[in-house]
Amino acid sequence: MTGFVHDSERPARLGMPEAIFCGGKDDATIEAIVAELAQGDAPTLFTRLPAARLAALSASAQAALSHDASSATATLGGTLPARAGRVAVVTAGTSDLAVAHEALATLRFSGVEAEVIADVGVAGIHRLFARIDHIRSFDIVIVVAGWDAALASVMGGLVGQPVIAVPSSTGYGVAAGGMSALHSMLSSCGQGVLVTNIDNGFGAACGAIRMLNMTHRIAP
Amino acid sequence: MTGFVHDSERPARLGMPEAIFCGGKDDATIEAIVAELAQGDAPTLFTRLPAARLAALSASAQAALSHDASSATATLGGTLPARAGRVAVVTAGTSDLAVAHEALATLRFSGVEAEVIADVGVAGIHRLFARIDHIRSFDIVIVVAGWDAALASVMGGLVGQPVIAVPSSTGYGVAAGGMSALHSMLSSCGQGVLVTNIDNGFGAACGAIRMLNMTHRIAP
Amino acid sequence: MTGFVHDSERPARLGMPEAIFCGGKDDATIEAIVAELAQGDAPTLFTRLPAARLAALSASAQAALSHDASSATATLGGTLPARAGRVAVVTAGTSDLAVAHEALATLRFSGVEAEVIADVGVAGIHRLFARIDHIRSFDIVIVVAGWDAALASVMGGLVGQPVIAVPSSTGYGVAAGGMSALHSMLSSCGQGVLVTNIDNGFGAACGAIRMLNMTHRIAP
Amino acid sequence: MTGFVHDSERPARLGMPEAIFCGGKDDATIEAIVAELAQGDAPTLFTRLPAARLAALSASAQAALSHDASSATATLGGTLPARAGRVAVVTAGTSDLAVAHEALATLRFSGVEAEVIADVGVAGIHRLFARIDHIRSFDIVIVVAGWDAALASVMGGLVGQPVIAVPSSTGYGVAAGGMSALHSMLSSCGQGVLVTNIDNGFGAACGAIRMLNMTHRIAP
Amino acid sequence: MTGFVHDSERPARLGMPEAIFCGGKDDATIEAIVAELAQGDAPTLFTRLPAARLAALSASAQAALSHDASSATATLGGTLPARAGRVAVVTAGTSDLAVAHEALATLRFSGVEAEVIADVGVAGIHRLFARIDHIRSFDIVIVVAGWDAALASVMGGLVGQPVIAVPSSTGYGVAAGGMSALHSMLSSCGQGVLVTNIDNGFGAACGAIRMLNMTHRIAP
Amino acid sequence: MTGFVHDSERPARLGMPEAIFCGGKDDATIEAIVAELAQGDAPTLFTRLPAARLAALSASAQAALSHDASSATATLGGTLPARAGRVAVVTAGTSDLAVAHEALATLRFSGVEAEVIADVGVAGIHRLFARIDHIRSFDIVIVVAGWDAALASVMGGLVGQPVIAVPSSTGYGVAAGGMSALHSMLSSCGQGVLVTNIDNGFGAACGAIRMLNMTHRIAP
Amino acid sequence: MTGFVHDSERPARLGMPEAIFCGGKDDATIEAIVAELAQGDAPTLFTRLPAARLAALSASAQAALSHDASSATATLGGTLPARAGRVAVVTAGTSDLAVAHEALATLRFSGVEAEVIADVGVAGIHRLFARIDHIRSFDIVIVVAGWDAALASVMGGLVGQPVIAVPSSTGYGVAAGGMSALHSMLSSCGQGVLVTNIDNGFGAACGAIRMLNMTHRIAP
Amino acid sequence: MTGFVHDSERPARLGMPEAIFCGGKDDATIEAIVAELAQGDAPTLFTRLPAARLAALSASAQAALSHDASSATATLGGTLPARAGRVAVVTAGTSDLAVAHEALATLRFSGVEAEVIADVGVAGIHRLFARIDHIRSFDIVIVVAGWDAALASVMGGLVGQPVIAVPSSTGYGVAAGGMSALHSMLSSCGQGVLVTNIDNGFGAACGAIRMLNMTHRIAP
Repeated sequence: MTGFVHDSERPARLGMPEAIFCGGKDDATIEAIVAELAQGDAPTLFTRLPAARLAALSASAQAALSHDASSATATLGGTLPARAGRVAVVTAGTSDLAVAHEALATLRFSGVEAEVIADVGVAGIHRLFARIDHIRSFDIVIVVAGWDAALASVMGGLVGQPVIAVPSSTGYGVAAGGMSALHSMLSSCGQGVLVTNIDNGFGAACGAIRMLNMTHRIAP
Repeated sequence: MTGFVHDSERPARLGMPEAIFCGGKDDATIEAIVAELAQGDAPTLFTRLPAARLAALSASAQAALSHDASSATATLGGTLPARAGRVAVVTAGTSDLAVAHEALATLRFSGVEAEVIADVGVAGIHRLFARIDHIRSFDIVIVVAGWDAALASVMGGLVGQPVIAVPSSTGYGVAAGGMSALHSMLSSCGQGVLVTNIDNGFGAACGAIRMLNMTHRIAP
Repeated sequence: MTGFVHDSERPARLGMPEAIFCGGKDDATIEAIVAELAQGDAPTLFTRLPAARLAALSASAQAALSHDASSATATLGGTLPARAGRVAVVTAGTSDLAVAHEALATLRFSGVEAEVIADVGVAGIHRLFARIDHIRSFDIVIVVAGWDAALASVMGGLVGQPVIAVPSSTGYGVAAGGMSALHSMLSSCGQGVLVTNIDNGFGAACGAIRMLNMTHRIAP
Repeated sequence: MTGFVHDSERPARLGMPEAIFCGGKDDATIEAIVAELAQGDAPTLFTRLPAARLAALSASAQAALSHDASSATATLGGTLPARAGRVAVVTAGTSDLAVAHEALATLRFSGVEAEVIADVGVAGIHRLFARIDHIRSFDIVIVVAGWDAALASVMGGLVGQPVIAVPSSTGYGVAAGGMSALHSMLSSCGQGVLVTNIDNGFGAACGAIRMLNMTHRIAP
Repeated sequence: MTGFVHDSERPARLGMPEAIFCGGKDDATIEAIVAELAQGDAPTLFTRLPAARLAALSASAQAALSHDASSATATLGGTLPARAGRVAVVTAGTSDLAVAHEALATLRFSGVEAEVIADVGVAGIHRLFARIDHIRSFDIVIVVAGWDAALASVMGGLVGQPVIAVPSSTGYGVAAGGMSALHSMLSSCGQGVLVTNIDNGFGAACGAIRMLNMTHRIAP
Repeated sequence: MTGFVHDSERPARLGMPEAIFCGGKDDATIEAIVAELAQGDAPTLFTRLPAARLAALSASAQAALSHDASSATATLGGTLPARAGRVAVVTAGTSDLAVAHEALATLRFSGVEAEVIADVGVAGIHRLFARIDHIRSFDIVIVVAGWDAALASVMGGLVGQPVIAVPSSTGYGVAAGGMSALHSMLSSCGQGVLVTNIDNGFGAACGAIRMLNMTHRIAP
Repeated sequence: MTGFVHDSERPARLGMPEAIFCGGKDDATIEAIVAELAQGDAPTLFTRLPAARLAALSASAQAALSHDASSATATLGGTLPARAGRVAVVTAGTSDLAVAHEALATLRFSGVEAEVIADVGVAGIHRLFARIDHIRSFDIVIVVAGWDAALASVMGGLVGQPVIAVPSSTGYGVAAGGMSALHSMLSSCGQGVLVTNIDNGFGAACGAIRMLNMTHRIAP
Repeated sequence: MTGFVHDSERPARLGMPEAIFCGGKDDATIEAIVAELAQGDAPTLFTRLPAARLAALSASAQAALSHDASSATATLGGTLPARAGRVAVVTAGTSDLAVAHEALATLRFSGVEAEVIADVGVAGIHRLFARIDHIRSFDIVIVVAGWDAALASVMGGLVGQPVIAVPSSTGYGVAAGGMSALHSMLSSCGQGVLVTNIDNGFGAACGAIRMLNMTHRIAP
């Protein structure tokens, strides 16, 4: 008995994806959840499931899941229908890619078009300017950055779209664990930059989905 | 010489309001900025300008400003044109009203319809349920809460719209200064709850404005 | 020589269980304590003794202990006599089960009826309401939650019984290690919610036992 | 308009006192709440209302309130009926008395017999032993202590009743603000010592009331 | 007796200015130091001496000091001889000016040409680019910034000269006190950005002076 | 080349033991230091050298060292001459023994008589009182405790000799790493309790040796 | 009723001074304690009693107290008898003098000869070397320092006597409040440097007195 | 696709070395970067690449890199041309050597003459004085120290050249992770001591290179 209580009406009730966070769960619990969900047909996303943990599951569980190593996610029962809206996931460095891919996988699972634009940190700001027009073509911008996280502030001054800032835990010394990036993003001089927990690519994607949920309410 | 560099094209460039944060500026600097801006006609918002500080300005500066004591804001040159979208600003307690009013004033200055719904904290959750249908009628929900900030998480599970969480610095002991509320909101179990700095009602409103900036891009 | 000083009169003196915390002790020390206690007949609880550590003990020590893997506890010399009072151990998520089981095992060792009610976190608050009448049938409610720990506050507003809040160390980013949950619980808007150290299921159970110790003093 | 939403059914629903925390509210808000409540007859407790703030209220508000300076509390509409159970409020030093008096006032408002036993800190442990038999005559023990808060741990080993530990913000250096006392109490070696937020005498009393709420459920 | 021990050979020994930090000293101590130093002719800088504190000194002390209100500094005995090297002191906002002026005053006292370039924060990065060529004309760049301090990182990527980053304590919430800016600067992605204590404009200037001390050692 | 600079005159200059902290040094560095010191005859103490690290050294290095596993120390060249003074090393729990043994080994290496008195924590204060007369027979008392570290305060009130408090890193939750114990000891209500870094049994012993260095200066 | 419990046997029992910490006590409490103690003849020290607070007491209380403004202490009933031992109280800067004077006043009240040696911080280390022989003539060295507190470590390497390190709260930025100095002192490379709470000059003096209590036990 | 964007013009644009931080990158990313850069001839430095990680790369990647185990760095495409200026890298202990070697390797890669001077910590300050004349012969002094980091302050008072302070993460208890050393260095009483992130030997070297970039601008 896992104690797991499935919230299968979440997509209908909130317009949000049903997702299972595997981070604090042991193998037996994940195994049981996969078995239970595999009996239905509700598309479900599994996050924080790296390849090493997938390999510890049974063959039937592995068969039920469609796994993506770069984001440490898996889907079960396919994905949600395509919907309007395009999201850019921009990273300051290559070390931020794992978090960016979690956001990307969540968006794609949820039917939202998304693209990762990597390694445009402000230490060489010409790299950002070379791509800023492309970034402006998206409806929402997710910025993933560790260390000083200065990219979030600069981005906030360059685009008028929503900017969702995700601090990443890359870095050492005072930057270790992402607290420096988190505080920098919360203190951003860029107006209206909104922030998630450290490394929370999934949450950033969900924040973007909430925004897309809302657009149909407002006449253009 | 104040060193102040006006960014008068911000509204046109980003679709964001031009605003002056008075928090760290001395009276002479604010006086000079008001004098300079009063020569033009660009609508400008002044934040963190409580009545006591307003009273220290010259008569001409006071005349140029339209002040609102409950939010400690003032406007100069009128407000921005009305635009589509309605925002609910929900508070857990009456102590959160100052922060909520800063968000409200920023939204109204920016031409966005907004309403404060106060004192629906989860310690008596029936108070929230009595108002949840009204809250769901808005396009975006800003939640202001101090202490445990549990309202943000509960709200995240009750609505599918964007939820912008603003930790407030009300509270004492471990809640003093708002760090407890901030961390609770960043750790929210509600999917996609996005967070601002502590007491940052202005930033929450700007985050909402960015979302409204984006809606016209997406065909309904 | 382990330096261990047994407090065998604790049950008689305080009405509290005699327990050995294995967390900071090396294998030789635990081995010696088991050997010493096995010569008497006082029921003793061992906590923080996961299966891997049990396996490192001698065959005779393993034989003397009755081990429960889910709570990482063991008993020696049986359990204490049954006593009045029923305790609910409620968790926000499945990741909190290890801590909940430590509370459960401590209560059962101490002769108190207890039950775990899992995965009723507030992100989907209908799950909690579906079980709240059952929870209200208990005399004391222990709430185990990590992340934002909002369940403790909501529970405090829904029941009039004692609510003992146990922050769990599940979570990442600012929630890592349980400090976010701890501070949220200490800041709870629910009146009179009392808190233990992070992951301290044992302490929560002992707090409940102290309450049951007291009931016979008060005429109904 | 204060936004204040009165929870007048709290005593009936939860068996807990209705209380207004004045800490984060401005004078006008308190004034309005007093005026509203004075029209009914529900006994209500006001906390964190020092004499200086009371003096700022209108004559009619002052007349409606029965104020106690030592605890910075006031009552309106009398107190709740007497009920079974006696609570000791023990302090380590004289500097902890304000917090202890908040607990005392809350208990007495709620109809519970209570007594403050002051200045029995462990630096001169003979002072504690001289009073321990008297302390043991109570049903519940609230311990208020700042600095190292060692009294909570010692008390936990001397009595079998519930021990509710309230860290106080007395102290300087690393003890300033009460974090040292809080962490010491949460780390207590005394089994089942339960903890409130810093300086939260009100919360400790409410925790005790929850325990007394529960006693009638259990046959002696 | 002040206990003050004058280090009058510091300029000769280290090539550094002799300076008196007034922050933690009471009026009597400052008075005594001024009196003692006024008997000699060694140029001395007094820092953290705001106008209000100056006014508390005797007329003779005030006469001996040449005070600058914007930097809260004063000089006694004139300034040091002019020397080669030009330093830019760049600020992100107008709130950083007090710290920038402390650096400016220290440099000018030490005979170094310096200029403040204010309000070029990255939230409107076009303001920085409009001035970057002028900034590049200096030998050393001091960057003063609070909040996210992103300007330090961007500057580090735009110039090859020494960049000395001074976190300022402007800001609220997580930015309060300057810790967010400090950590952001220490984590800077800009190579070789060096950092001082929060608000330490004096220290930044001294760091620049050490660099100028060294240039004559190296053949061009 | 290790860069190691031996301070062979330390015993003569300060009356303190020469000691090598192995914690941050790699195997090659320790090997080289042992080889260099083995050529002389100065008694030297090696700390933080657990058995596993000893085993990684060469046979000749192992032969030169006299190792004690319980304290993770080793000596080379024998010990220092016996001297007057007796030190008690008292622990709150058995988990504190490793730190206590480091103090014990340092004292014995330095020629000072010492004894460990274990497991007298205040949760069962009768255990302490049973041994207090024996403890009072020593000249100096070192107290090692983790968690709430309440033993240090209680001891400070029971003896008039020097009390050196060593916080240990045993514990979990807020007690993890020893910060809770450290702050409790620094905040001790016991007059004149002096504190070392966390787990610093060596430093506590050195503090005691400095006291014994001083006694001969004072006529009895 | 103050709740104050006098520990009049402390000097006889422990050889330590009886002292009243006025920091957290209100005027009425101090007044009552002075009145009570003035009826006996036990010498008592009052600490943290600045001139401004003294002035708030009654004329009779002021008459009973012998006050020293520089240390914010007062004595009642004279001082304790002279005893053997000399203590140096060394400060890094003039800002540390208030803390040093508290140590000095406590020692002199307790009959111990003591002297303050001020402003020998290591930024100009020649100042320290000019006085080191004089410092070595004392039996115990108390070091008071804020900021980096480097003086404690340097002193630990220059003398073999006990070194008691008192972090002071002078400083700004990361040094504000004394945590930087505290951690530096706890991390001292000087062997056996023992530490008190921040600004605890009284505690340092008491630690020295405990050492002097012990010297008569050891034959020279 | 690594997302890596090469900044090949950095040396020409800024006069700074092109460097790849390997810390947060996985093996495949490093492999791809090496392959890409090996096709050109721009000298590039790889940092945080310990021998164990090098061994995981392909034979061709290993062949392209010139690795130095003591600094965990590698170079590709040779080094930059020799330039004027000499830098001393001074360490407090042998445990700081890894960080010192990272600075050394960066300087040598960049064509700057540099030398490590190890183990001159202030606990035995005669070791420092024995080498101070040699240290003064360099143009810039980098100080690497953990624990109390007192060496940085002492050095700041002994030389007039630039002092770049690098806190190292050696140490345990409050010194663990280097925060104690960082705060001590930022609080340094030595004028104009500039600080890098913890363990950032690379950043210290880059700071020195910026200084050398500037010297040619200033006529001697």
